[in-house]
Amino acid sequence: MTPDDVSLHRWRPGAPLAPDTDRVAVEEPLELRVNGRSVAVVMRSPGHERELAAGFLFTEGVIRSADDLLDVLVCRDLPDGQSGNVVDAVVAPSVPVDFERLTRHVFSASSCGLCGKATLDAVLQAFPPVPMTHRFLPETLSAWPRRLREAQPGFGATGGVHACALFGPDDSLLVVREDVGRHNALDKVIGHALLAHRLPLGGHGLLVSGRIAFELVQKALAAGIGLIAGIGAPTTLALDCAHRGGVTVVGFLRDDRFNVYTHPERLGA
Amino acid sequence: MTPDDVSLHRWRPGAPLAPDTDRVAVEEPLELRVNGRSVAVVMRSPGHERELAAGFLFTEGVIRSADDLLDVLVCRDLPDGQSGNVVDAVVAPSVPVDFERLTRHVFSASSCGLCGKATLDAVLQAFPPVPMTHRFLPETLSAWPRRLREAQPGFGATGGVHACALFGPDDSLLVVREDVGRHNALDKVIGHALLAHRLPLGGHGLLVSGRIAFELVQKALAAGIGLIAGIGAPTTLALDCAHRGGVTVVGFLRDDRFNVYTHPERLGA
Repeated sequence: MTPDDVSLHRWRPGAPLAPDTDRVAVEEPLELRVNGRSVAVVMRSPGHERELAAGFLFTEGVIRSADDLLDVLVCRDLPDGQSGNVVDAVVAPSVPVDFERLTRHVFSASSCGLCGKATLDAVLQAFPPVPMTHRFLPETLSAWPRRLREAQPGFGATGGVHACALFGPDDSLLVVREDVGRHNALDKVIGHALLAHRLPLGGHGLLVSGRIAFELVQKALAAGIGLIAGIGAPTTLALDCAHRGGVTVVGFLRDDRFNVYTHPERLGA
Repeated sequence: MTPDDVSLHRWRPGAPLAPDTDRVAVEEPLELRVNGRSVAVVMRSPGHERELAAGFLFTEGVIRSADDLLDVLVCRDLPDGQSGNVVDAVVAPSVPVDFERLTRHVFSASSCGLCGKATLDAVLQAFPPVPMTHRFLPETLSAWPRRLREAQPGFGATGGVHACALFGPDDSLLVVREDVGRHNALDKVIGHALLAHRLPLGGHGLLVSGRIAFELVQKALAAGIGLIAGIGAPTTLALDCAHRGGVTVVGFLRDDRFNVYTHPERLGA
């Protein structure tokens, strides 16, 4: 799990954005094959692919012991950038594999290829970059975590849910949704806006209570949201997607500081 | 998002486990249908199902506007416990739906039914309850977060990954795995143990860096792990699964306190 160095800008009250660098967790797609047949694509941190395949197949009930798993081959002879992103689990002939039940198609599975770049090519083909139509005051962003906490009764009660908030171009808090799944919380917010005929959401900003992984940026891009901010850290693939999609990513958002990872030109007076 | 009240025991240094109650976030499966055909089962917090369906279909690229979505029907005439856990999105006839690409089979999709109880019935049928063969000293648990932090260099560097650690019956730290996806981190740990011919892991304890949702408990149960501890909160379905599966769940684990939600008899001298 070797992190990547990325460029960013750090914000502090009363100071201009300051260029800096920091380390960001790497996120890449992994295709899992069983006896040569593709069964799943998951977004993951590179490393320990044999363990991931073995644990996935065991906890899914496909294999029952180490003896059921003859080998896990990490495919290396792949096109540029995909090396190591495909593993093939060789399961003993005596083990019945219900491919129909096992197959998971995630968004990136069928058309997006097996490296970050190919995944992003497909996303950008489906969803055009967000135009630069609105700027956000850094001081208003720094108030978002407090405003989310105040609007998030479930989190206070259980500590067990993710939350997602949408802010309008006038900085009004339009909707907050909570869910045990963070993708669901964002889907609910975007669904709310869709059903209200408000899409695309140019000029709107999004706040998520956790980390910023690729799929959250992809969903923000789909809805035309110009800025996504998180209390936690982003991943490399999230930043690559945001860079190409014209989305501003803000991480580690606090009331007295935050990091801007992509498109800092959207921040200012 | 109405949380459920659950019974638990609170631990503090030098004191016996103290019975109490607390509120826990509800987690239930939701089946999403498009024009009557099942396309996905997601674990989610009940509420705002129409928004969730609309946002999911929009960000997956199936619908392009509110006009493409004629209605979202929440199915109520379902067997006991499933009411509200199935939604059917009625998409305009002019919208092409690629069911092959869209279909996601998650673990619970094919056989587990559409309420918590049916999901658990299926899980318990596949994986027997964990026998009570080992007790954990509360004082050793309270040291796990510090030991995980010390063994987790990636987290310190990026703040962007989940971590999962496995402790042996002698309280030795056997393996730590990190990943941008928390399911992956646990799959890697279990895969590591499987490839080392160490399954089942009776007498072992698991620490996860975040919250404890259903699928993490299900994976722990699959590996025969007797105790799962998290820095964050559990969900209702995670606790129901642990209760029936004989797994001890510890939440909000700190160096000076934690909560025991299920099977407290596994804690003690």
